[in-house]
Amino acid sequence: MFNFTATYTDQYQLAMAQVYFEKGHKDQKAVFEYFFRKIPFNGGYAVFSGLEDLLEIIENFRFDKSEIEYLRTKGFRENFLNYLKNFRFTGNIISVKEGDVVFPTRPVLQIEASIIEAQLIETILLNLLNFQTLIATKASRTRLVAGDKMLLDFGLRRSQGPGGYYATRAAVTGGFDGTSNVIAGREMDIPVSGTMAHSFVQSYDDELEAFRDFAEGRPENCVLLVDTYNTLKSGIPNAVTVAKEMEERGQKLLAVRLDSGDLAYFAKESRKLLDAAGLEYVKIAASNQLDEFVIKSLLEQQAPIDIFGVGTNLVTGNPDAALDGVYKLVYSAGKPRIKISESLSKVTLPHKKQVFRIKNKEGKCIGADVIGLAEETRIEEMYHPFEPYKSLNIEEYEQEPLLEKVMDNGKSLLNKRTLKEIAEYSLSRVAELPIEYKRFNNPHIYKVGLSARLKEERDKLIKEYKSKT
Amino acid sequence: MFNFTATYTDQYQLAMAQVYFEKGHKDQKAVFEYFFRKIPFNGGYAVFSGLEDLLEIIENFRFDKSEIEYLRTKGFRENFLNYLKNFRFTGNIISVKEGDVVFPTRPVLQIEASIIEAQLIETILLNLLNFQTLIATKASRTRLVAGDKMLLDFGLRRSQGPGGYYATRAAVTGGFDGTSNVIAGREMDIPVSGTMAHSFVQSYDDELEAFRDFAEGRPENCVLLVDTYNTLKSGIPNAVTVAKEMEERGQKLLAVRLDSGDLAYFAKESRKLLDAAGLEYVKIAASNQLDEFVIKSLLEQQAPIDIFGVGTNLVTGNPDAALDGVYKLVYSAGKPRIKISESLSKVTLPHKKQVFRIKNKEGKCIGADVIGLAEETRIEEMYHPFEPYKSLNIEEYEQEPLLEKVMDNGKSLLNKRTLKEIAEYSLSRVAELPIEYKRFNNPHIYKVGLSARLKEERDKLIKEYKSKT
Repeated sequence: MFNFTATYTDQYQLAMAQVYFEKGHKDQKAVFEYFFRKIPFNGGYAVFSGLEDLLEIIENFRFDKSEIEYLRTKGFRENFLNYLKNFRFTGNIISVKEGDVVFPTRPVLQIEASIIEAQLIETILLNLLNFQTLIATKASRTRLVAGDKMLLDFGLRRSQGPGGYYATRAAVTGGFDGTSNVIAGREMDIPVSGTMAHSFVQSYDDELEAFRDFAEGRPENCVLLVDTYNTLKSGIPNAVTVAKEMEERGQKLLAVRLDSGDLAYFAKESRKLLDAAGLEYVKIAASNQLDEFVIKSLLEQQAPIDIFGVGTNLVTGNPDAALDGVYKLVYSAGKPRIKISESLSKVTLPHKKQVFRIKNKEGKCIGADVIGLAEETRIEEMYHPFEPYKSLNIEEYEQEPLLEKVMDNGKSLLNKRTLKEIAEYSLSRVAELPIEYKRFNNPHIYKVGLSARLKEERDKLIKEYKSKT
Repeated sequence: MFNFTATYTDQYQLAMAQVYFEKGHKDQKAVFEYFFRKIPFNGGYAVFSGLEDLLEIIENFRFDKSEIEYLRTKGFRENFLNYLKNFRFTGNIISVKEGDVVFPTRPVLQIEASIIEAQLIETILLNLLNFQTLIATKASRTRLVAGDKMLLDFGLRRSQGPGGYYATRAAVTGGFDGTSNVIAGREMDIPVSGTMAHSFVQSYDDELEAFRDFAEGRPENCVLLVDTYNTLKSGIPNAVTVAKEMEERGQKLLAVRLDSGDLAYFAKESRKLLDAAGLEYVKIAASNQLDEFVIKSLLEQQAPIDIFGVGTNLVTGNPDAALDGVYKLVYSAGKPRIKISESLSKVTLPHKKQVFRIKNKEGKCIGADVIGLAEETRIEEMYHPFEPYKSLNIEEYEQEPLLEKVMDNGKSLLNKRTLKEIAEYSLSRVAELPIEYKRFNNPHIYKVGLSARLKEERDKLIKEYKSKT
């Protein structure tokens, strides 16, 4: 549904690219790393999402004629425009697996390319990965509390414009079962579901008649919205009548939906009425400003809700509007690069790197990752990033490398997984995390350490920089 | 860049549509109204945005072959699918002007169409108007505090996926001067600007050399990013050197950009250094987590900043993720319709309506709108919506009708305005608002009243409903 042409970008990428081109720097080899600094929602982990979309977009990253013409009117010069006309991304991408749990300050993805190519794909990379990772993380948190209840994305009407398309994808990556979003369902093979709107009931003079027509028209997966007038006095009794009529036709009402009021109370009372009518099989769906906290509370109150429809808070990542992912140069023209900051915690880590997840002999996560140089295959001692005398010997531990090559010379190496497979992988990785990293209040911090060689390289560059100023 | 085919929708729209189709209700005449309940950002007003995009999308709203085939696999039936194949929206749209200031509970836009057509466009309507109105409102608040300083949208990398395209449009509607977003600039004729990234400076061994190359490559509108190493000891002195070299070539450095640290302090110190070098004309641009509150504070501290680059908080509407706009049935099959709620303030207002902005004889807004039935042209007495004995005589006041027909039988009636014209209109309407509705803390509430006839109709329907249950 989208055509991400190459000008879905910030102008400065093009301005810098022209300078690289004209000054003969364009083929300078560079490594950029994508990472974030803060876990959204004050949580203990994030779920990486958006990789497959990104690779597809980068494989097809082109400037079309009208874009070239537009750039000409903006003062870009002919030689450079000629270069853009034939632009292809021909670099490598090394990445954490989509769906994996990821943590701050560790590289999640690396671009190894000529500096001009790496720069020209920055904006779309940040745009896609920041957004999908935010939403997949929100979805994963919701799945944590929902257990095996059904979770449906109902957010399209409140999503941020066409962002709703990717919100649905990320929601499923993080653990949602289905969506109301038809185009996302079609293009990504996601189960699509939906019920009815209040307007449908209102357009009839009589709620019972509205339910009857709907059940006749859509007997499979039929869900009746019961709160247009009065849930317990009108909606549920009418739904019971229709469910009984459906039984006579050999059909079964799937569920009733509650969309207002105290959902815990109405779910309990509705359950009683349905059960008293012998409709134990009719499920209860609930919606209305849900998020992971409300669902947790409803289930703690033993509200007998089987299906949760989550909208705005899911698809916008409310209350966090964005993941703060950045794209930093770590190596170019044969030299490691560093971004200096007043605070050591904001100084970037130079060189192309590898990240290892540390596990004990039983394969359990011990709560730390270690970052080494890309060529390191095992790390003996892991050093605290900012406290010089703190270290831990990790020789005895399993060290799972997280970054793997996913694009080679501009061609994706991924055996495309279905979204379902990505989601299952994500669930399995979340399951590996000890529980203290998954709680909502003050989750334990998943630690990070540096290899001796990486630490030494960083400290050397800081010293060099200090001696110059 | 987008192709909003008709399945960018919630499945329940199609489920309901099939029932309307099969039960012979599809041509039932209906009126739906779009309105919202809460002003974002705890502000005193919102800026309506997204109308022109919406009309264009609705004029071109089609189900393509592959969509029809997909729906067939989902159990939709042949007669209905045949109807969808030839689907066109043939109704009317009546709307507030794009860019106008709008307030809660008043209809902002009406759809007058057969119920099936009105239902099928609901999702895209809510999606577009909710998002653009949210962002235009944020932008307008930012313009309020920025006075005549330049405001640039730098948000694309943190926007919610492709939502970034419309975020830029809405930002300009609300008063931004330009954007970094190239494709939005091209397609909507918005001034595009940009500077350089830290990675550009880092890719050189020497900051001065990086600045030199950049200034030679992009001498027009050249902005140098001065905080990669040390703003006052290195960035500004190097920028001064390059500015002097540019002068020798008959060129002028446009600005330096600060992107970290205490922006007020660094702006003041940078200004001193630039002025001492005779570079009074070089502007100071600032970015880094800005929003309307930070800009207000910076200007109150007399930070000499000329250009503000605003990113994440603008394009995502942080901290409010969504406008809570809804789409409610107010009339169908010859009858006014009402949605009942426990709280009178959530009961919808029946009938197709008109909204009047009340002004005194000098043309000044008095701080209230009044809602009447669509056929009313002047209102004599305006009634409080929930307090039965409160009313105000408004015979003597000017009453400006806000809703006008913008689509007739599926054809847009708008003389398409440029985005600049919409933005100018918006600024003029914000300027008409008394200042107490524009402050950030506890803004005055822009009141709403009902005409006697509308109030009577609503109360009659509530009574009817109560007698039935």
